[in-house]
Amino acid sequence: MNISKFVAPEIIFGQGSLSQIGESAVRLGASKVFLVSDEGVINAGWADLALHYLRAAGLEAEVFSALTTNPKDFEVTQGVEHYLASGCDALVAVGGGSPTDVAKAIAILATNGGKLQDFEGINKITHPLPPMVIAPSTAGAGSEVSQFAIIVDTIRNLKMSIISKSLVPDIAIVDPELLKTKDALLAAATGLDALTHGIESYVSLAATPLTDIHALKSIELISRNLRRLVADRTDMEAGTDMAMASLTAGLAFSNAILGATHAMTHQVDGQIDQHHGETNASILPHVMAFNLPVCLERFRDIAVAMGEDTAGLDLESAARLSITAVEALIADIGLQKGLAQIGLESKDIPMLSGNAMKDACLVTNPRNATQEDIEAIFHKAM
Amino acid sequence: MNISKFVAPEIIFGQGSLSQIGESAVRLGASKVFLVSDEGVINAGWADLALHYLRAAGLEAEVFSALTTNPKDFEVTQGVEHYLASGCDALVAVGGGSPTDVAKAIAILATNGGKLQDFEGINKITHPLPPMVIAPSTAGAGSEVSQFAIIVDTIRNLKMSIISKSLVPDIAIVDPELLKTKDALLAAATGLDALTHGIESYVSLAATPLTDIHALKSIELISRNLRRLVADRTDMEAGTDMAMASLTAGLAFSNAILGATHAMTHQVDGQIDQHHGETNASILPHVMAFNLPVCLERFRDIAVAMGEDTAGLDLESAARLSITAVEALIADIGLQKGLAQIGLESKDIPMLSGNAMKDACLVTNPRNATQEDIEAIFHKAM
Repeated sequence: MNISKFVAPEIIFGQGSLSQIGESAVRLGASKVFLVSDEGVINAGWADLALHYLRAAGLEAEVFSALTTNPKDFEVTQGVEHYLASGCDALVAVGGGSPTDVAKAIAILATNGGKLQDFEGINKITHPLPPMVIAPSTAGAGSEVSQFAIIVDTIRNLKMSIISKSLVPDIAIVDPELLKTKDALLAAATGLDALTHGIESYVSLAATPLTDIHALKSIELISRNLRRLVADRTDMEAGTDMAMASLTAGLAFSNAILGATHAMTHQVDGQIDQHHGETNASILPHVMAFNLPVCLERFRDIAVAMGEDTAGLDLESAARLSITAVEALIADIGLQKGLAQIGLESKDIPMLSGNAMKDACLVTNPRNATQEDIEAIFHKAM
Repeated sequence: MNISKFVAPEIIFGQGSLSQIGESAVRLGASKVFLVSDEGVINAGWADLALHYLRAAGLEAEVFSALTTNPKDFEVTQGVEHYLASGCDALVAVGGGSPTDVAKAIAILATNGGKLQDFEGINKITHPLPPMVIAPSTAGAGSEVSQFAIIVDTIRNLKMSIISKSLVPDIAIVDPELLKTKDALLAAATGLDALTHGIESYVSLAATPLTDIHALKSIELISRNLRRLVADRTDMEAGTDMAMASLTAGLAFSNAILGATHAMTHQVDGQIDQHHGETNASILPHVMAFNLPVCLERFRDIAVAMGEDTAGLDLESAARLSITAVEALIADIGLQKGLAQIGLESKDIPMLSGNAMKDACLVTNPRNATQEDIEAIFHKAM
């Protein structure tokens, strides 16, 4: 018996779709919403615009933005206290992966109690969550459609993966307009995160035909549009395609899970507070090279989706073009950096690798990896 | 502002997945389920197997199967009386498009009251429906994932399209095993219905990148597998791919709506009780020829998805290959029949065309069609 499951939220997509946020929350029965955002998004005016639409729909709202990149467990604890004291009955996030995952984590604790660590891993959430509407402001995390929430455990200094169908928001509102106010580095890092989602879910052991079509589409769209969006964030053709890429990559990894790259970056991100997409850029090509021998056809498909000409090549050469294409994209968007450059120290590699072995994302990596394998990949990525 | 919406149920897919039907209904809060099925499915043993799983999950169940191909409004009226008297609190369908659409229609009347005609068209349902779990036994209708229910109005002798997000079931359980007991004609007709969904939604005015990838995938899978499944319904490789094709075509048309073929077959099906897929086979190539001039690129994509070699061809010739490929497939699976052969009379064409002009599916047809255009297509399809 080979049974797969696929879950997606209701998706509202397109330029100007943020205007649907109030009506969407009303439809879910909200009367007072807890709006989770961050400083950058607030300064760019998107939180205020969302508040305008929420209030126009007759809703009260409370804003919470005391969170950082790679959001921390204690930020969630403060958030849930604020949420419970506020009398809110729904969560809305306007922002990138960090505000979205904080909103999800607040939702967990609000109705399930306990501490976040109790929910680490797969399917640990038992009580239904409050209604959630997510409007992403970056094209990368895919958290607006995924069953994942990733929060840093500040005791263990690693990112916990909380994976549960209940974490799929009720409604995802994907408005490419919100991408316009990002800087080039954030556009690059988030886009590379989406590419990593597409690639890892396409070669995942839990991939299905339904996740495959979303994964390949995301890879194709990112290859064609990420350079353009990094060069000009007001290029709304590229922005719309990148928003769709992030969404399809999200649908793919939410249902097919990820692989060794994420199992490893989750550890690095717990130590060093740089953008998760940059860490992915350092590690992804090396994990691809490690996985390539066990799924040549799939890596050839990725090369083709990235626009590489594989005509006349043998299977392995065609597959290898996927790595070349990813390396070229990383270089073109300015993310070519070793882990040493971002401050990782070789002495930490055994500990990071030991923790990566316990990460839920490693289970679906297509090639079985020992701790020695993971350590070797870390060293190559330095 | 160009805002699109995409809705999908939770999907459980794979051989043996019918075993999840009890647990699925329990998860939705059911205590006693109303199981809608039909004679063929009951005789093949699938309804009993579903009952076994439902009871094993601690649920009571009542079976309703008093319905026909192209299900009728009065069958729904009887069904809803039975449902309300039974004390059931959830609907489960095990069967093709007919039992599924009857289950949906019963759900509408159970909580909204009134008569079915009140809900014809788009978004007329105001009250939430009881929980619904759908397990399709054919690879064609796609109703297990769609926001459509199609029921014959026996006064006007036409099929009403009821389209509403509330009609997307909560859970779709797609078990290819159920395809094994179909006869060749039903496998052919349902498969051709799925192909029509894929093609009409791909050229629909409401198509989006998200519906496109599902539509093209369905067209590709059907081209590769329908002949095989018609030849041998126990070929589970072909069956699994056809089940996925029906599902992806369903996701595509549910969110992109359909076109002139369905607007026309809905009228024919209201007059003549043959399988909807057979009517589609008579009409689809002629509607493709009518639409082709306004979306050459899209028809070329369809030709490519169907495995046609378009290398070196100009755009129009490449696009035309999509029609040739569809005609060849229709002939190979034994559905090459004119409407006259199935008993349609020329004198009815003006009335049928007049009704087709009012069908919700015509709105998204890529080429604007007058009543004269529709009449001309009907004549060609005779």
